[in-house]
Amino acid sequence: MQALRKPRPERGAALETVPVPIIGPNDVLVRVRAASICGTDLHIYAWDPWSASRIHPPMTFGHEFCGVVERVGDEVPELMAKPGEFVSAEMHVNCGHCRQCRVGQPHVCQNLEIIGIDRNGCFAEFVSIPAKNIWKIDPAIPEHYGAILDPLGNAVHTVLSGDIAGQTVAVTGAGPIGLMAIAKACGCSTLFATEVNAARRAMALRMGADLALDPSAGDVVAQVREATDGSGADILLEMSGHPTAIRQGFQMLRAGGRASLLGIPSQPVTLDLVNDIIFKGATVHGIFGRLMFKTWVQMTELLKSGKLNLEPLFGERLPLGKFADAFKMLEGGLAGKILFYPNGARR
Amino acid sequence: MQALRKPRPERGAALETVPVPIIGPNDVLVRVRAASICGTDLHIYAWDPWSASRIHPPMTFGHEFCGVVERVGDEVPELMAKPGEFVSAEMHVNCGHCRQCRVGQPHVCQNLEIIGIDRNGCFAEFVSIPAKNIWKIDPAIPEHYGAILDPLGNAVHTVLSGDIAGQTVAVTGAGPIGLMAIAKACGCSTLFATEVNAARRAMALRMGADLALDPSAGDVVAQVREATDGSGADILLEMSGHPTAIRQGFQMLRAGGRASLLGIPSQPVTLDLVNDIIFKGATVHGIFGRLMFKTWVQMTELLKSGKLNLEPLFGERLPLGKFADAFKMLEGGLAGKILFYPNGARR
Amino acid sequence: MQALRKPRPERGAALETVPVPIIGPNDVLVRVRAASICGTDLHIYAWDPWSASRIHPPMTFGHEFCGVVERVGDEVPELMAKPGEFVSAEMHVNCGHCRQCRVGQPHVCQNLEIIGIDRNGCFAEFVSIPAKNIWKIDPAIPEHYGAILDPLGNAVHTVLSGDIAGQTVAVTGAGPIGLMAIAKACGCSTLFATEVNAARRAMALRMGADLALDPSAGDVVAQVREATDGSGADILLEMSGHPTAIRQGFQMLRAGGRASLLGIPSQPVTLDLVNDIIFKGATVHGIFGRLMFKTWVQMTELLKSGKLNLEPLFGERLPLGKFADAFKMLEGGLAGKILFYPNGARR
Amino acid sequence: MQALRKPRPERGAALETVPVPIIGPNDVLVRVRAASICGTDLHIYAWDPWSASRIHPPMTFGHEFCGVVERVGDEVPELMAKPGEFVSAEMHVNCGHCRQCRVGQPHVCQNLEIIGIDRNGCFAEFVSIPAKNIWKIDPAIPEHYGAILDPLGNAVHTVLSGDIAGQTVAVTGAGPIGLMAIAKACGCSTLFATEVNAARRAMALRMGADLALDPSAGDVVAQVREATDGSGADILLEMSGHPTAIRQGFQMLRAGGRASLLGIPSQPVTLDLVNDIIFKGATVHGIFGRLMFKTWVQMTELLKSGKLNLEPLFGERLPLGKFADAFKMLEGGLAGKILFYPNGARR
Repeated sequence: MQALRKPRPERGAALETVPVPIIGPNDVLVRVRAASICGTDLHIYAWDPWSASRIHPPMTFGHEFCGVVERVGDEVPELMAKPGEFVSAEMHVNCGHCRQCRVGQPHVCQNLEIIGIDRNGCFAEFVSIPAKNIWKIDPAIPEHYGAILDPLGNAVHTVLSGDIAGQTVAVTGAGPIGLMAIAKACGCSTLFATEVNAARRAMALRMGADLALDPSAGDVVAQVREATDGSGADILLEMSGHPTAIRQGFQMLRAGGRASLLGIPSQPVTLDLVNDIIFKGATVHGIFGRLMFKTWVQMTELLKSGKLNLEPLFGERLPLGKFADAFKMLEGGLAGKILFYPNGARR
Repeated sequence: MQALRKPRPERGAALETVPVPIIGPNDVLVRVRAASICGTDLHIYAWDPWSASRIHPPMTFGHEFCGVVERVGDEVPELMAKPGEFVSAEMHVNCGHCRQCRVGQPHVCQNLEIIGIDRNGCFAEFVSIPAKNIWKIDPAIPEHYGAILDPLGNAVHTVLSGDIAGQTVAVTGAGPIGLMAIAKACGCSTLFATEVNAARRAMALRMGADLALDPSAGDVVAQVREATDGSGADILLEMSGHPTAIRQGFQMLRAGGRASLLGIPSQPVTLDLVNDIIFKGATVHGIFGRLMFKTWVQMTELLKSGKLNLEPLFGERLPLGKFADAFKMLEGGLAGKILFYPNGARR
Repeated sequence: MQALRKPRPERGAALETVPVPIIGPNDVLVRVRAASICGTDLHIYAWDPWSASRIHPPMTFGHEFCGVVERVGDEVPELMAKPGEFVSAEMHVNCGHCRQCRVGQPHVCQNLEIIGIDRNGCFAEFVSIPAKNIWKIDPAIPEHYGAILDPLGNAVHTVLSGDIAGQTVAVTGAGPIGLMAIAKACGCSTLFATEVNAARRAMALRMGADLALDPSAGDVVAQVREATDGSGADILLEMSGHPTAIRQGFQMLRAGGRASLLGIPSQPVTLDLVNDIIFKGATVHGIFGRLMFKTWVQMTELLKSGKLNLEPLFGERLPLGKFADAFKMLEGGLAGKILFYPNGARR
Repeated sequence: MQALRKPRPERGAALETVPVPIIGPNDVLVRVRAASICGTDLHIYAWDPWSASRIHPPMTFGHEFCGVVERVGDEVPELMAKPGEFVSAEMHVNCGHCRQCRVGQPHVCQNLEIIGIDRNGCFAEFVSIPAKNIWKIDPAIPEHYGAILDPLGNAVHTVLSGDIAGQTVAVTGAGPIGLMAIAKACGCSTLFATEVNAARRAMALRMGADLALDPSAGDVVAQVREATDGSGADILLEMSGHPTAIRQGFQMLRAGGRASLLGIPSQPVTLDLVNDIIFKGATVHGIFGRLMFKTWVQMTELLKSGKLNLEPLFGERLPLGKFADAFKMLEGGLAGKILFYPNGARR
């Protein structure tokens, strides 16, 4: 089969012909229909220091996808997966026996392996997935949404890591996951987005933000405070990973509020712990991955009921062979979610 | 009456004769039985930059006390307070109408006033307290415990800001409040304390710690991890305010765990947000004051049932006139909770 | 002033001239703009056994209203209320010193007094309210909504007594509060309503229900299970108080789900505790009043943000003198929320 | 091997020789060290209506045990189980794909199978267990405790289904699980037990109850209210399944309190829903099984730290052949937890 590979420890990728994965008795072989490119894939493509420390070439990358079950292992119960079903998958494979797995927090498993990072991923015609990680896609959900359930899950997990109804929300950073959070978070009362890029601010408003503020053009902390009678926002959803945005986010959070942090800063961040967290009596949630599989149920429900319109977020749809174009567009900045179709033209 | 005052904006204090406070219709006048000295009082005495920015001399300080109701205002219902009752008080006075007060978080009120900091306090023969802030002390609780309910409340609020039963706990910093937390936290399974001072480590073991570790003598992070099969502690109670201890605390916290931060760092702290909070999926609670008045109920229940032995924490008992000795002992380091008896010798 | 009174312990009411209330130092006198009739008022009017046991004539009833502050007591801070402000009020007056008040649950105070039931209410030109119970109405909220914040609060408290986003919900009973719950609960995924009355089913669909089922015409339990792939609904909001509906509600609840009970059955109810609650691992919330004042903040936010359209629920608007017509319409069944205007014609 | 079987649909049991179970690739074969008799086993032995509807003879029963891993299937990771390890098991086998399994509530799986009820159990020399259900027993825990982790888990799940520190607790029913709950619940402040049997009341006091009340000799509701200043207990743990005790339990619960129901009534129960749940604003938890596997972690921590002394609860230790004696003692009433040793004399 064809697969997009990181052949060597250096920038770039290569389309190669490799054997179809051989599956074990508890695994499922999926024929990939569509796969989406994550920011992490850009890091792998560019071969940054994080990639160099984590990725072991040669390997196939990619971890956001949907497809059709081709074959199941001997021990897979029919109710979990059978040939012909349209599925996606949680690509974080947990061990099942560490303390976190045992107390109901498998999403922060101590021995986590990520498909597409620690083993061969979905930028290929076929991918092998443990049966317990397979997620059947409800027929009411449009096919291409199936390819972005992984990042949508990040957004939904962030938004729903605490109460949200009837509360004011500040989202710092309106990249793809920030925009998904905005789309979902509209169960809140008033939503403020901060984002330096004008096109993304426009998109934030289109996705449901009430106010899209530019940190480079004014005092966004003062603006959010003013719009909340001086209290600050009830909830902060930090989606940027930028130290300044993180600090501004905490400053615009009201005392007693909730901050959920998903954005990944590239280095340690200096925080005014006393005024921004301790004296505020704030609650801070670190967000990693998605709840397994509560977040998937929530996403399915929201998508089935038509309460999440993500259409504006989708970008180009390309065959795997056009990968160089895809990465170029994404490195340029503002492309939407680009989808690969490894098994040929989209329907 | 006699009162211990900060007469001028400079180091020191003075015992002065001032009028007994005149109370309003919703206030209660309390004859102070015993008052305890907090770390904050040391800052006020020393006149550090924080004091200079917050305190307006001349004023009477002190905010940990117990006493007997002397007189009540005309609008105070008999069930809330009546002359002769033995009481303490929540010294954080909330406004009742800001957003936090309205959503059930008065302990982080936007317009909070602290008695003994923002208005005259309890280092005096009498103190005036709003009736709603009065706390009646259960007769089963020893008198001198009444003088330290304020800091004990900090400790109990920190410990009980999340589940604790059947979990492992790391306490960083074994000063008076850290030690109270240790005493209470023994509803947990295993308790690790880290503390550089040997006498405090000994006291930590005496109060119930299973292991008292010295950060200056070894790798406390590795020690806690080893003692938890590599997972780290389920819960971090940060009581030191020291940047190194804060960072070590987060490193010894297991993924998915809870960190409750009470210690007050004197400047911004640089954190490895990605590895210590975000990828860990940790929950962080900033802790300020005490829940009004849930924490007071919890304390009362624990003290009544004999489940909290704090006897080893008490130090000297002195008349107000010996204030210079008291502050000298405390500035020297290791004194226990010193109690003033403004109305004369202890019973 | 004119007031609608229960003059004697018997069916009926009378419009009488009585003195304007004299307020205490912590009270606020409000000139009533609009008042709404609750089901409880129907019980008082009809003088049912509950009324006979609780109400002490002569008294003025009515407990849902909005109006303008006329005068404030001497001890009322300006920030809490001042003349000319447009306000409503929490009519449950808590004592402030019982255990529930102290642990942050004043809505279930042991010594609760209800204005309009235990003391003179708002079916009058003026009503006296303790300042702490006054709720300022945000100018962005339409005037007539101010008169129904009390029952809307019941609905919002019921809906938000647990998580709701991305979950399926069954509402049993589509009376006024049930319909308000439906309007709010639309942050859920799929909403099922059960209701025997066809007009109310139609209204339920209009307010946002996805499916309105008739228990008299089919097996609603089977219908909800079928629509949820056999699982049952994630959440039950019981708004009917009818024993059959309560039992059906529990049967249509999935294992591990949440049931919030607001409807008031007129006698004890026989439940299959084992299969409906225990083996299901269900969580059941008894709902009384509104959270003080978290629910009021949530309502305000939802109304300000335009996320609650309750317009279809309003009925006639009448002067107090037309009370006999009003009660007749309501006893007949299907009237919307009728508003009295005690101080003259609506604006 | 030898196994205690229900050979036919009638009262009784038989010791038979059957083949050692053949395990699948994801299973573990355990040599049973000790097994304990549950109340459910008494029902199966007596062949009551529930047994007749659920059990399909011939089969081996028993579902509380500990033992040593004899052999593991080919697909079982070494970290999950390997020969020679001392283990117990969660005997509720969840499907992994229903809604409850997917949202993190596998303990109320829709397709649950119970080993020892729906398939062959542990009253035998060997038992086959799915690897994911194996629980390794910490070496610090005494061997015989390993045989009662299943019922201890019921108790711990009940006690810890909500906050407990610093709260008053009423336990209705002091059978074996009630007594385990009492032992654990001592993280609370004051514990009241109600129990008609004098020997069990004595045991309740021995296990940590502060007050053991006899419902046949006085008004236990009034007694608990009086001992709580009229408020009622903060928490009810219902362990009896008796309708009268359930009703008394709800009456002794304070408004705003938590009731966790584990006891299984044999028929529907009539409740005063209005006064006992709705107007009280109570929270009710149905309790089934144990959290998988959070409860197991909590138990392990509590047992390791020496905070649970269950020694008084153990009764006779017998070979499987003495089963008739064992059931006779248990049907007589007051025996402690009887342990079978299917592979010969205890160490």
